[in-house]
Amino acid sequence: MNTPGLSRRHFLTSSATAATGMAAGSLLQATTSLAAETPKLKQGDVILFQGDSITDARRDKKRQDTPNDAAAMGLGYPQHVAGGLLAENSKLGLKIYNRGISGHKVPQLDERWQADTLDLKPAILSILIGVNDIWHKLGGRYDGTAETYREGYAALLAKTREALPDVVLVVCEPFVLKTGAVNDDWFPDFDAYRENALKVAAEAGAIVVPFQKMFDEAVASGTEPGYWAADGVHPTIAGHALMAKTWRETVGI
Amino acid sequence: MNTPGLSRRHFLTSSATAATGMAAGSLLQATTSLAAETPKLKQGDVILFQGDSITDARRDKKRQDTPNDAAAMGLGYPQHVAGGLLAENSKLGLKIYNRGISGHKVPQLDERWQADTLDLKPAILSILIGVNDIWHKLGGRYDGTAETYREGYAALLAKTREALPDVVLVVCEPFVLKTGAVNDDWFPDFDAYRENALKVAAEAGAIVVPFQKMFDEAVASGTEPGYWAADGVHPTIAGHALMAKTWRETVGI
Repeated sequence: MNTPGLSRRHFLTSSATAATGMAAGSLLQATTSLAAETPKLKQGDVILFQGDSITDARRDKKRQDTPNDAAAMGLGYPQHVAGGLLAENSKLGLKIYNRGISGHKVPQLDERWQADTLDLKPAILSILIGVNDIWHKLGGRYDGTAETYREGYAALLAKTREALPDVVLVVCEPFVLKTGAVNDDWFPDFDAYRENALKVAAEAGAIVVPFQKMFDEAVASGTEPGYWAADGVHPTIAGHALMAKTWRETVGI
Repeated sequence: MNTPGLSRRHFLTSSATAATGMAAGSLLQATTSLAAETPKLKQGDVILFQGDSITDARRDKKRQDTPNDAAAMGLGYPQHVAGGLLAENSKLGLKIYNRGISGHKVPQLDERWQADTLDLKPAILSILIGVNDIWHKLGGRYDGTAETYREGYAALLAKTREALPDVVLVVCEPFVLKTGAVNDDWFPDFDAYRENALKVAAEAGAIVVPFQKMFDEAVASGTEPGYWAADGVHPTIAGHALMAKTWRETVGI
C-alpha cells in the first residue's frame, strides 16, 4: 500500500485470477484489464452495498443514513457481512451502509449514483445488479439488452473510478437458480448479461464475487435450488449467509 | 449417543466446565448438576430461540410459523446463527424458529410455553431471559426478585425436561453493558439474577453460553461498551454477530 492511487489497481496477476474465481482464459483475453488487490481495512473506512432487491432485502430506508444500523442493513447478505466485519474489527470505526433498492436496474443506479454512492465516499463499494435488467425485459417492461447492460454498467464503473480513484470496487456476479420464476426463457440470454458483468468488472479492476459459480456448486452438491432461493432470484437465509461467506472470502476482509 | 435419554445428560465433567465458561468452584458446589454434551445435528431437527427483545430483534410475528424465514428470524443473533447453520447443513432439513417477545420475563414465557415452545418439539432449545426480570423491578413495574426469577426459571426448565426428555437445553447467560440505561442501580442485584441463571442451567443439564463473560472481555480489550449495545441492553449488529459466533462455538454446532 505504498503507492496510493495505484495500490489497488495493477495489471493482472495469477493470484488475482484465483481470487476472482473467473476462468483464466476469459481474463487473459481482456488485455486491458485491471485486477484488484485484497483491500486492507483502514480506520473509519466506509463500506457500501449497492444493488437491487437482493441487496435491499427489506431494509428500513428511513434509517439508511445511520451506519451499522441493523434495520437499515436489511435481512440479506449485507447484514451477515456487516455483522462479521463489525464484530471482528471493533477498533476500526467502520461505517457500513446498504443502499440497494428493489426493482432497480443499471439505469436506476445511475440516476441516484451521486447521492447514494459517490457522496458517501466509500472505501469499498460492492455492487450486485443485473437480474432486473433481464427480468424486466423478459416481462416486456423494459427494452434494454445485454449490450445496454454492459454499456451502462461500464459507464457507471468508469464514473465511479473517476470520482473515487482509490475505491475498492467489488462486482458481485449476477446469478439465478433454475426454479420458481426462472425458466428456460431466461437462457441463454442470462449468461450474456452475467458474462458482461464479469467483463466490465475486469475492465474496471474490480474484485469479482462469483455468486453464480457458488450457487451452481451448492446445487451440484445435491441441494435443491429452492433451498438457496425459493423463486430462483431472491435468496433464502441459507442463500444470503452463503453469499456473505463467499463475499468475505473473496474480498479477503 | 448410544444411550438415548441419557446421551445429553450426564454428571459434570471438566470439559463441561471449560465449555460453559463458568467458574469451576460454583459448578462444583452444585453437586446435583447435570451437564450437557455437544449436540449432533440430526435430519429434520427443530431449533428454537426463546427470550425477550434481544432475541425478538424486530422479527415479523405474522410469519413465525414458517421455519427459516428471514423476516421471522428478526435482526439479531438468531438470524446470524440460523444463516450459518442453514448454509453449512443444507442437507439436514433443519427447521429454525424464533419466538422471542420484547418485554417478556420468566412469567410471560411460562404463560405461553406450551404453544410457543413445547408444541414445536425442539431438538435444541435456546433461551435468553432475565434482563426484564430485573429492569422492570428497578422501574417499579414488577415486584419479582432474583429468587422469584430463580424459582420460575427452574420450574420452566423442569417442565421442559419433563415434556421433552431429549431436548438439548441452551441457557444464554443474561448480560448488560455499563452504558446507556444500565447504571449503578443495577448492581449488585444484576449479578444475583445472572448467577441464578447459571445455577438453574447447571441443575437442568443445560449448555451455558457465557454472554456476560464475552462482552466483558470485548470491553476489556478496549472497545466502548456502546459499540456492542448502545443502551447497555440491546446489542448492535456487532454485538449480535459476536453473540452468534459465541453461541455456535459454545453449543458446538
